[in-house]
Amino acid sequence: MTTASAVWRDVVRIRETAPLVHNITNYVVMNTTANALLAIGASPVMAHAIDEVEDLVRLAGALVINIGTLSPAWVDAMFRAGREASKKGIPIVLDPVGAGATPYRTDTAQRLSRDVSPAIIRGNASEIRALVQADATARGVDSTHSTEESVDHARRVAGQYRCTVSMSGATDIIVSSDATTRVGNGHPIMPRITGLGCTATALTGAFAAVNPSAFDAAVHAMIVMGIAGEIAGERAAGPGSFWTEFLDALYALQESDITTRMRASDR
Amino acid sequence: MTTASAVWRDVVRIRETAPLVHNITNYVVMNTTANALLAIGASPVMAHAIDEVEDLVRLAGALVINIGTLSPAWVDAMFRAGREASKKGIPIVLDPVGAGATPYRTDTAQRLSRDVSPAIIRGNASEIRALVQADATARGVDSTHSTEESVDHARRVAGQYRCTVSMSGATDIIVSSDATTRVGNGHPIMPRITGLGCTATALTGAFAAVNPSAFDAAVHAMIVMGIAGEIAGERAAGPGSFWTEFLDALYALQESDITTRMRASDR
Amino acid sequence: MTTASAVWRDVVRIRETAPLVHNITNYVVMNTTANALLAIGASPVMAHAIDEVEDLVRLAGALVINIGTLSPAWVDAMFRAGREASKKGIPIVLDPVGAGATPYRTDTAQRLSRDVSPAIIRGNASEIRALVQADATARGVDSTHSTEESVDHARRVAGQYRCTVSMSGATDIIVSSDATTRVGNGHPIMPRITGLGCTATALTGAFAAVNPSAFDAAVHAMIVMGIAGEIAGERAAGPGSFWTEFLDALYALQESDITTRMRASDR
Repeated sequence: MTTASAVWRDVVRIRETAPLVHNITNYVVMNTTANALLAIGASPVMAHAIDEVEDLVRLAGALVINIGTLSPAWVDAMFRAGREASKKGIPIVLDPVGAGATPYRTDTAQRLSRDVSPAIIRGNASEIRALVQADATARGVDSTHSTEESVDHARRVAGQYRCTVSMSGATDIIVSSDATTRVGNGHPIMPRITGLGCTATALTGAFAAVNPSAFDAAVHAMIVMGIAGEIAGERAAGPGSFWTEFLDALYALQESDITTRMRASDR
Repeated sequence: MTTASAVWRDVVRIRETAPLVHNITNYVVMNTTANALLAIGASPVMAHAIDEVEDLVRLAGALVINIGTLSPAWVDAMFRAGREASKKGIPIVLDPVGAGATPYRTDTAQRLSRDVSPAIIRGNASEIRALVQADATARGVDSTHSTEESVDHARRVAGQYRCTVSMSGATDIIVSSDATTRVGNGHPIMPRITGLGCTATALTGAFAAVNPSAFDAAVHAMIVMGIAGEIAGERAAGPGSFWTEFLDALYALQESDITTRMRASDR
Repeated sequence: MTTASAVWRDVVRIRETAPLVHNITNYVVMNTTANALLAIGASPVMAHAIDEVEDLVRLAGALVINIGTLSPAWVDAMFRAGREASKKGIPIVLDPVGAGATPYRTDTAQRLSRDVSPAIIRGNASEIRALVQADATARGVDSTHSTEESVDHARRVAGQYRCTVSMSGATDIIVSSDATTRVGNGHPIMPRITGLGCTATALTGAFAAVNPSAFDAAVHAMIVMGIAGEIAGERAAGPGSFWTEFLDALYALQESDITTRMRASDR
């Protein structure tokens, strides 16, 4: 069961142990996701060179793979780092950004899901659907639906790739083979800031590095993401000040913020 | 004639239709231009892989090509996406960042201008000049002159490549084969924030996606850019707070901001 | 001897001459270091293409090489630009980000240090140590020790590569073959913002462009970095607002800030 104290325990562990999170991510969010990881207390490393990704990932508590601005050399590095992490038992969080928008993305996301055994796949409804529907199409990288149909897709992805699926939307839905949790935290301005989905993925990496349950890590990360987003959204005048407030909120997050704001339901 | 109501109509269209703007742009501004596009209401996609740019650009309302941190693989993708967009009638906005600073940039900018038929070329005076003067040299990527000589260069570029030229400076000057508009909005701190020229280019893409007149789209974009910059500059204590305020101003922009602040003269 | 008036003189020179600083740097910090350079008054150029780095570096007052997200094509460009700068007497500042973390980084950093003759190498204690200890290992890219052992490593690096070494930490230590200066400015929140080490390196480039003494340039840059960091840290609520305040502080820096805050000791 999802409890505020379990969420807080993970935040404390991240702050105390500063887990190394290795990110092979897209150009758009390298700076912002590194900053979010630092703000929550983790140690980000952003590195993609074939000549070093295996060496680096061995030092990491989690590997985050994000295909937002993929190209062939980067995809190679994602597979190399992913296989090495998989072999060493280091949890992998995959963000199939834009899967469904082009065959190249859909194919890469499906191959990664199959070959590197991610512990968690985090995406929006369109991206999750594209992992089980070869002919799915999406308009760009944004999607906000999270209907029951989407939950079915998430269940199928979780079953097919034996992983936790963290599907973000107005309500975030986290599913595994035997559990479902819905997280209602967040703020309506969030889709107007670039890379917040990628930030959720990166934070999920930090939680996966300190919590052996991939499902719990995914749930806790989305709660923290949503609560920091709420705090920032309430304080911000727009998307510019949102980002400033969001990092400050992650950094200053207290147990009482979680206790008073958490909106999570298990099933 | 440039009217505040026509500018506002485009802003409303962008907010209502959230046009997809495909950007093949430079590393420095990927995050900031994506955020500016989201703040005004558009849907940015940043993607450069040869394996997908043609698939992606077909979904887009406009294509933005920015050579700020070019390299051979990216230039190939710019040509591919550009030709596909051209074939489909999707407007292209080209930012020849740093043209004139090195032969590689000048040559790439000239070839793109010729081969992909941009609807709008947006750059500073040095960059525009470099498109018609093979031997032009520039110091880096910044330039602030916008003399009558520069206007002549802009006219020659507009004639040679049959496009609208949007030349930014203390006064922005937009020219086509048969029209000229000058926009006096803006704030003196703007040259001290990186990538604001690139932001103007990205916003021009959003306006080109909703307005069939490339000239009007370019003029309206520079007015909105300049007014948001003015509001931000008045509120900011320096270049850090400027960026925060700028995104917030774009997001909160109202018709009265345009009515009361617009400084545009047609010829 | 380090004096506030000498530090201030360099700031004024940067503001008055706006030296071009050519950066071949990592994706994470391209935007932020460009903004820091603009805020202090310099003119940043970020460019890495083999086809133009030699042309560009010739126009520059300093070259900054940062291996934070290196890959083979970029390393080639670093060597080309570095050799050209070296030949023309343009000072090079090298940031061996993550040296010690992987053999690829350590090897690249050592080869660059040897072949392009940097005037200044700026890194943290782990990175500096990795330049003289082939078997050194580091955990990621962060390090905070700056013990006497680290000073010995810095001295060995300075001797081996005949350069100034600027080693950042709680106390920054700048050493050359015949001098040592310690700078105590800064703020405890600074390690929680990504890329501030890279920002220090970029600012060092601006100072190296206006001060013929590499040692003095390195010292002055770390003082300005630390003082702007202090001002920002005092005003900020967290790492998000820190960055905004930091750029604003660099931009608004006055002589009295240096006079009243500078904590530098020569030996």
